[in-house]
Amino acid sequence: MLALPCVRACFLLGASRAATRARLLHPATVMTVAQIDEEVAKLLQLKAQLGGEDGKHQFVLKTPKGTRDYNPKQMAIREKVFNTIISCFKRHGAETIDTPVFELKETLTGKYGEDSKLIYDLKDQGGELLSLRYDLTVPFARYLAMNKITNIKRYHIAKVYRRDNPAMTRGRYREFYQCDFDIAGQYDAMIPDAECLKIVHEILSELQLGEFCIKVNDRRILDGMFAVCGVPDEKFRTICSTVDKLDKMSWEDVKKEMVNEKGLSEEAADQIGEYVSMRGGMDLAERLLQDQKMCQNKQACAGLSDIKLLFSYLQLFQVTDKVVFDLSLARGLDYYTGVIYEAVLTQAGLPPLANDSQNGASSEESAGVGSVAGGGRYDGLVGMFDPKGRKVPCVGVSIGIERIFSIMEQKAEASAEKVRTTEVQVMVASAQKNLLEERLRLVTELWSAGIKAEVMYKKNPKLLSQLQHCEEGGVPLVAILGEQELKDGVVKLRVVSTREEVDISRADLIAEIKRRTSEA
Amino acid sequence: MLALPCVRACFLLGASRAATRARLLHPATVMTVAQIDEEVAKLLQLKAQLGGEDGKHQFVLKTPKGTRDYNPKQMAIREKVFNTIISCFKRHGAETIDTPVFELKETLTGKYGEDSKLIYDLKDQGGELLSLRYDLTVPFARYLAMNKITNIKRYHIAKVYRRDNPAMTRGRYREFYQCDFDIAGQYDAMIPDAECLKIVHEILSELQLGEFCIKVNDRRILDGMFAVCGVPDEKFRTICSTVDKLDKMSWEDVKKEMVNEKGLSEEAADQIGEYVSMRGGMDLAERLLQDQKMCQNKQACAGLSDIKLLFSYLQLFQVTDKVVFDLSLARGLDYYTGVIYEAVLTQAGLPPLANDSQNGASSEESAGVGSVAGGGRYDGLVGMFDPKGRKVPCVGVSIGIERIFSIMEQKAEASAEKVRTTEVQVMVASAQKNLLEERLRLVTELWSAGIKAEVMYKKNPKLLSQLQHCEEGGVPLVAILGEQELKDGVVKLRVVSTREEVDISRADLIAEIKRRTSEA
Repeated sequence: MLALPCVRACFLLGASRAATRARLLHPATVMTVAQIDEEVAKLLQLKAQLGGEDGKHQFVLKTPKGTRDYNPKQMAIREKVFNTIISCFKRHGAETIDTPVFELKETLTGKYGEDSKLIYDLKDQGGELLSLRYDLTVPFARYLAMNKITNIKRYHIAKVYRRDNPAMTRGRYREFYQCDFDIAGQYDAMIPDAECLKIVHEILSELQLGEFCIKVNDRRILDGMFAVCGVPDEKFRTICSTVDKLDKMSWEDVKKEMVNEKGLSEEAADQIGEYVSMRGGMDLAERLLQDQKMCQNKQACAGLSDIKLLFSYLQLFQVTDKVVFDLSLARGLDYYTGVIYEAVLTQAGLPPLANDSQNGASSEESAGVGSVAGGGRYDGLVGMFDPKGRKVPCVGVSIGIERIFSIMEQKAEASAEKVRTTEVQVMVASAQKNLLEERLRLVTELWSAGIKAEVMYKKNPKLLSQLQHCEEGGVPLVAILGEQELKDGVVKLRVVSTREEVDISRADLIAEIKRRTSEA
Repeated sequence: MLALPCVRACFLLGASRAATRARLLHPATVMTVAQIDEEVAKLLQLKAQLGGEDGKHQFVLKTPKGTRDYNPKQMAIREKVFNTIISCFKRHGAETIDTPVFELKETLTGKYGEDSKLIYDLKDQGGELLSLRYDLTVPFARYLAMNKITNIKRYHIAKVYRRDNPAMTRGRYREFYQCDFDIAGQYDAMIPDAECLKIVHEILSELQLGEFCIKVNDRRILDGMFAVCGVPDEKFRTICSTVDKLDKMSWEDVKKEMVNEKGLSEEAADQIGEYVSMRGGMDLAERLLQDQKMCQNKQACAGLSDIKLLFSYLQLFQVTDKVVFDLSLARGLDYYTGVIYEAVLTQAGLPPLANDSQNGASSEESAGVGSVAGGGRYDGLVGMFDPKGRKVPCVGVSIGIERIFSIMEQKAEASAEKVRTTEVQVMVASAQKNLLEERLRLVTELWSAGIKAEVMYKKNPKLLSQLQHCEEGGVPLVAILGEQELKDGVVKLRVVSTREEVDISRADLIAEIKRRTSEA
């Protein structure tokens, strides 16, 4: 007879397993049939509350690993960042294109070296073999070759996919945005390259992310440096990958990897060590052109002359304050053929990124603490797609937007200012009951006039809840209808921030709302 | 000795296979070693022109089946359409969210009925099993349940994926955009439903796609109608699918399918035939509420009362001119529970869509000739995701944007007006040689002032080619630098359309450009 209160307690706990245990403790013999029926009914009710058939809700309610939803607040920040970036791209005269989220698998084959293992493949469901795009550069090159386009200045903002080890708190995801700006075409040396750096400078300045620095180097200088330091040809790429780790590892560790793991002579490693510690501006390029060893290497000389030319254009673009010629900059991707660059946030107080290398991050992405943009020249990629191997020289830059979102979100959290997620200018509210029709009529007028407006979807909402909605959502104005106002042919316009209220004649309302919202 | 000219001819033909054949016809014995060397060298050169290693370019240069790139012109049109739609969503106070392009496979399982076979699965590469999203509604419901959101008004514009038989010329793709607006929350009947129809009306009017009509019906009316016509319960869904074909098939064929394929009695089919020929407005709902058979069915009555209420709100929203209560509207998707609707372009002269049904098109997409929007109420979907089965009532609409793109593109083709793909306001050009530095200096000034400007990436471009670039790209102004202008401290500002030129002092240039471009 003690079973019933116990079952009730179990309902409070919401645990049907506990209820079963209770039954076991109190065998059915001490319960009447009616009591059992009652218990069964209650358990079935509990089951119904839990959502119908068993097993129906056994799945995990989540987004796939390494991905996330964007909530309205995050979207508002994202929109702001995109607007800044797109404005800059448009100011520089870029067109935009879009490509499918997946490509033929073979289109991506042989473009990413070791990182190819991170490509998402689609299941073979009959038909073509497909893979999700890994970046926007290879689809761009495929697009140029396919449409026989020999010059274009385009931007492309879209998501790309990498089966990487995500570090989501630091803005590293398996699905993430890339914002690419590229200039394709046979032009005079370093002019488009300089404009790419100008664009990075403009975007990072406008986004107010704090101090930054743009490192510049050239694949030909790196290769020339390896050659004159005695690195065997076949080890260029692998030694280059090790140099690429200098922003996360000490020189000692990098040297150890070169010598112990990659079998480089200690002497060669030490010579590399001397070069990669060098940074400067045009002066460094001039000095290295006089360097006894470097000047013997044709590749290096070509690269150094171009760096000089690049800096002369950067001076005209007024961006040399942030640009550093840095011989330790290596960048991972295979397809670069000339100048390479990378922008890094240098201000303290940034969220930590230091452990990224431990996550098996690909060299392209984890390119340093606070890396927010990168790119370079890739003159051979389009030719890989063209049936006749026709080359289209290209240079471009990719803005690391996810990292920027993270920083902007943290800034928004820290600041007192509220992020609005809608742009509603006025709520049409009522002070009494039975005014739904009047509200719908007025909101229709406002919509027709292009005013952003809303009503509550209730027949008789309380005035207080309507006002509360405005305060929470940052809606600046409320147009309040009441019986008296309707009789007088006016609307009470309330300013949410000051709580000031003023009667406006119905005929003047739209003009008044427009006046007040354009002031803000 | 005849081999050489032949090899040369082969070069002209660009066919190395022909060259090989030539060698076979002229055995090596008739050639000298030097000639062989020469031929080999030429063949290698040909090979190099063809792009390096053989087999490297054997792949097909295309986008996956059913997908396409968007070129800059298409993107310009797309941007315009999106801006119209997003403005409307924002005017109605919507927030926006984003979700990953793929979901856990089980999230999509059991949501799309027969159409589930069209879902793209990702390859099992270890870890979670994933599928590309099939629509934006299921991810939205998953998002609400996961974040325990009980009310929100949101829009979501993103690509979805269906392994359908594409009919790309008619705007049907395997990768296509959806533009969804949904209102979730426990509200008073038909107010949010009416706003969804208001939004469709506003968007289709603003896009100026020609005459349109929005058909409205209710799942409960359909079910009630089936019940009173004597359709067995278990046949509701399949008979509903057949009714859904009425916009593409004659009643005779629909009836045949019901009777011969789905085993419905002829009598029941005829009764359905009477109802589904009915269309009207609020009056029809009132008449059916008096209908002897219909009024006996609770479900149907509830639906009919709601249609009446809906029309009263639509009158206040001033959109009844385009809305028709149409009992033949059925819509394919399983998850609808109440009002359903679909917007159709009715003007003649539209590109043909009539054959879509032959392509095995899913009922959701091929919902009629010129269908450009659709949606309805789905009160049970969020509950399918909530661990406790808590329901969140939802109503929404999806704009069929690809079809709209197709129509806008065709309109753009037909019209004389040129679609601009950049927003460049002024090109900085030079009339003489050796003025690159001056051009870069001036364009930097313009960028700093927020003016959209560009220069040609050549040291010494011809004035004519700079002007041609402007004419082709629709750039309205050219700022021309020459030695005389530099001496005089002026810039020659040329209006591209009129070819009028005027000297402007360097100090006034920015203000003058802004004045002239804001006028346009």
